[in-house]
Amino acid sequence: MRKAVILLSGGLDSATTLAMARADGFDCYALSVAYGQRHASELGAAARIAQNLGVREHRTMRVDLAGIGGSALTDPDIAVPEVPMTGIPSTYVPARNTLMLALALGWAEVLNARAIFIGVNCLDYSGYPDCRAEFISAFENMAALATRAGVDGHPSRIHTPLITLTKAEIIREGMRLGVDYASTVSCYQADELGRACGRCESCRIRKSGFEAAGVADPTRYAPL
Amino acid sequence: MRKAVILLSGGLDSATTLAMARADGFDCYALSVAYGQRHASELGAAARIAQNLGVREHRTMRVDLAGIGGSALTDPDIAVPEVPMTGIPSTYVPARNTLMLALALGWAEVLNARAIFIGVNCLDYSGYPDCRAEFISAFENMAALATRAGVDGHPSRIHTPLITLTKAEIIREGMRLGVDYASTVSCYQADELGRACGRCESCRIRKSGFEAAGVADPTRYAPL
Repeated sequence: MRKAVILLSGGLDSATTLAMARADGFDCYALSVAYGQRHASELGAAARIAQNLGVREHRTMRVDLAGIGGSALTDPDIAVPEVPMTGIPSTYVPARNTLMLALALGWAEVLNARAIFIGVNCLDYSGYPDCRAEFISAFENMAALATRAGVDGHPSRIHTPLITLTKAEIIREGMRLGVDYASTVSCYQADELGRACGRCESCRIRKSGFEAAGVADPTRYAPL
Repeated sequence: MRKAVILLSGGLDSATTLAMARADGFDCYALSVAYGQRHASELGAAARIAQNLGVREHRTMRVDLAGIGGSALTDPDIAVPEVPMTGIPSTYVPARNTLMLALALGWAEVLNARAIFIGVNCLDYSGYPDCRAEFISAFENMAALATRAGVDGHPSRIHTPLITLTKAEIIREGMRLGVDYASTVSCYQADELGRACGRCESCRIRKSGFEAAGVADPTRYAPL
């Protein structure tokens, strides 16, 4: 059975990505990263999703990005914006996807897995540079040169099954595959119980996605 | 003053790289990574070198690569080889330089530093794929697409001042710049006092380098 490492944040997109990798017949190793994110309750969500969807192993690696700050998601002194922003928003975490893919690359090499899945999306992506197809392609090229697997002629490929889907399409696909979206946490400032604010950009994109998909929003919102 | 992030392992190469970055007029931010390496005493060496050479800040970030294993440097069940090997040796750590450069990239972006220094070398490099110039070039291309700095038109450049130098040339340059090599730890299985085994590949390359440079070897070796 082909092995795959799936980056699993605990949000809607990565849960759907895991379900899709599983449906494609991969033996799934889920990787979550505790990087000092404000919404650490997403890590509990990741554990529930990994269990619900039946992964071979779920690993959470710790890296302290809060120590360097520079993002509303890692620096408590930078507020999460609650109105739409232009350009790259303050919730962008410097080099986060590069770092997560690097961790996935290392684990994939140890497991002899040649597939890495990441739930990036170029439509509802908030303007993050490291969610674009050209970034993924450049990472893949770099990874082929970085690793023993690449030198041996079987480099890891980065799979991005959501890259051109709308949020509504992602949700419909996940519903079809049995993803329990009530277990997922997308909110940038979810409380310790995993309840969403309903106001940040991630909440807004998610809410519109359920509306556009014609699916009742199962998100647990925090009381105002 | 231009800022630079310098990856500082505590070994001979990275200490020399830091001295060269400083001599080039950079304001130096040194980054060490505690990744579960067997020779954790190199981290103490990194702290001494950072202090001796006068960096603006020295940060040690932790990532648990020992949890995934797959290398003689992170898995205590895989012995460090003490005879020359062909191909990529068991001391290769999957995706390590990708990961370290990713951490440096994130910190550089927060600091608004556009230079990252890494002491890779294509001559005395043990066959590690992630020490080659083509890997560095691919990482740089990827980084330009990954980051806000890249989108804004001032991506980080990866500086590799040692890439084409022999170990003897590196040592002569470091001596000229006042690097205290007695403080550095290169050995893959240095003891907790930072004393070298004298037998692993890293020790052999280092020892030959001092001989070729005509410089007395200041390495502290562990008693047999």
